[in-house]
Amino acid sequence: MLSEFDLIKHYFKRDRPGRAPLGIGDDCALLAITPGRQLAISSDMLVEDRHFFAGADPRMLGHKALAVNLSDLAAMGARPVAFTLALALPDANPDWLAGFSQGLFALADAHECELIGGDTTKGPLNICITVFGELSPGHALRRDAAQVDDDIWISGTLGDARLALAGYWNELELDPALHAEAATRMHLPTPRVALGLALASLPVAHAALDISDGLVGDLGHILQASRVGATLDVDALPAGPVLAQQAPALRRRFTAAGGDDYELCFTAPRAAREAVLAAGAQAATPVTRVGTIDAAPGLRLVDGSGAALELGLAGWDHFRSG
Amino acid sequence: MLSEFDLIKHYFKRDRPGRAPLGIGDDCALLAITPGRQLAISSDMLVEDRHFFAGADPRMLGHKALAVNLSDLAAMGARPVAFTLALALPDANPDWLAGFSQGLFALADAHECELIGGDTTKGPLNICITVFGELSPGHALRRDAAQVDDDIWISGTLGDARLALAGYWNELELDPALHAEAATRMHLPTPRVALGLALASLPVAHAALDISDGLVGDLGHILQASRVGATLDVDALPAGPVLAQQAPALRRRFTAAGGDDYELCFTAPRAAREAVLAAGAQAATPVTRVGTIDAAPGLRLVDGSGAALELGLAGWDHFRSG
Repeated sequence: MLSEFDLIKHYFKRDRPGRAPLGIGDDCALLAITPGRQLAISSDMLVEDRHFFAGADPRMLGHKALAVNLSDLAAMGARPVAFTLALALPDANPDWLAGFSQGLFALADAHECELIGGDTTKGPLNICITVFGELSPGHALRRDAAQVDDDIWISGTLGDARLALAGYWNELELDPALHAEAATRMHLPTPRVALGLALASLPVAHAALDISDGLVGDLGHILQASRVGATLDVDALPAGPVLAQQAPALRRRFTAAGGDDYELCFTAPRAAREAVLAAGAQAATPVTRVGTIDAAPGLRLVDGSGAALELGLAGWDHFRSG
Repeated sequence: MLSEFDLIKHYFKRDRPGRAPLGIGDDCALLAITPGRQLAISSDMLVEDRHFFAGADPRMLGHKALAVNLSDLAAMGARPVAFTLALALPDANPDWLAGFSQGLFALADAHECELIGGDTTKGPLNICITVFGELSPGHALRRDAAQVDDDIWISGTLGDARLALAGYWNELELDPALHAEAATRMHLPTPRVALGLALASLPVAHAALDISDGLVGDLGHILQASRVGATLDVDALPAGPVLAQQAPALRRRFTAAGGDDYELCFTAPRAAREAVLAAGAQAATPVTRVGTIDAAPGLRLVDGSGAALELGLAGWDHFRSG
């Protein structure tokens, strides 16, 4: 049986110099912040049978556990620096650990985000990552910064992750190849770090967040924090390539309130439309304009002709749902 | 049923200005570091039936979950600044949440350590705290800094937490009043933050760590990291007030390898004995000299007369034990 110390040494401690003055192996890690910069911090806990299926591919799980945290940094416009990993495992399975750490480090290396510490213990499978990024004071993309007449923008595409879930749940029948394609979107989300950095550093965007629980619910957080309303053109929402082949009603429902998309939703002044498109191009990330921030409270869903839509949607709540 | 957002708002979001530029409620929290200081970061995950009993008093659990993290900052000589809390709960029980948050914030306020963010989800009870402290570069009390001929010191007393566990496990019979006294030590550990700060800021200590898995095993981490050996006078180890009333054999075993003590073990030059005692007095924390760092590898346990002792002890390992 692998010991706790062997486990950390073998799978998580790396023989390469890091940026942190002190990494894994002491009571604390030490992190030096670039002078004049602030730290952005986010923590996400992933639980088996809630955030992922029992028996999920450990390599994809390693990717996703870090991706959802990097997505929070992206939504703030922060540059990833480091993260800690706390892991409860039912047992120390070498195959699982090898796959998990490979998926984790592949994404971490792509973003130059260093694992500097954490904890391992025995228990029901639970993955808790806390991630650290840097940004310049005053440049954070906050939820409370939307302004009336701002455009609302979305990165990438929405709904394929929700479509994959519908396939797993047998809510609908999907061609296996299409289901596999949509499932990749669910299991291997792409954190929009480059776009967040471009939007914050220009600076061009006002408010931003990442869409984890469905656009309508998450946009509601921006509206509440900014004390504004919005009109959303549901037919303008960019559907994922698999969802785009489905019926319009499903397409509307899953783009507007899918969940697990990890795209950015952000607002920017009308006058900045060209700058937003330039930021998207700089980050090699498609951006689509999908609505407007209004002074009138509430969120109005409309179709392509501007007529009101009632979709009966709600965001995901971990204690109310499921 | 309480929603996730209500839960955070009601039990964890506080109506008071904090030091952090942005706290709970956005994609990330923002933290401004004092210019010229480094960040010390530690993460600990507490799992039901492993780190605490099912049905444990939530107020004590809130205290302990933060205390074990503050203890890691103390062991580094860092000043607590902020923490994140990720919480998996089987359900949103108002009584549990009220007790937990009260215990948590009572200790957080005593150390001016601000809750700046985190995550809540449904799942088997799991508490993951990541804590942030500040220190001056070069002043951290690292495990790899022990030097030959250093004295070995211990803060406070050892073994009462292990004695309480022995009572719960029926390894021995304890008078109920004594068991309750020892159990307080197990459930409500005191992080030695003031002592860690005094030792690091003078600076007087070389290496340090906090004793969580038993002194002998934890001291071994200092010896390994510093590539030195040590001689430990087991009879000099300060026993907790309840353990002090027990037979000498039990006293030796539980002080040397008890676990859950959360005292500091640190090394300092012989020439600094007066300074160490002054740091202890400044921090209102008893400190006891219990051994010496040697050039010869390995840990030698001796009794009060200097004769070798073989106690057959091992540290706690989450994947090997239990």
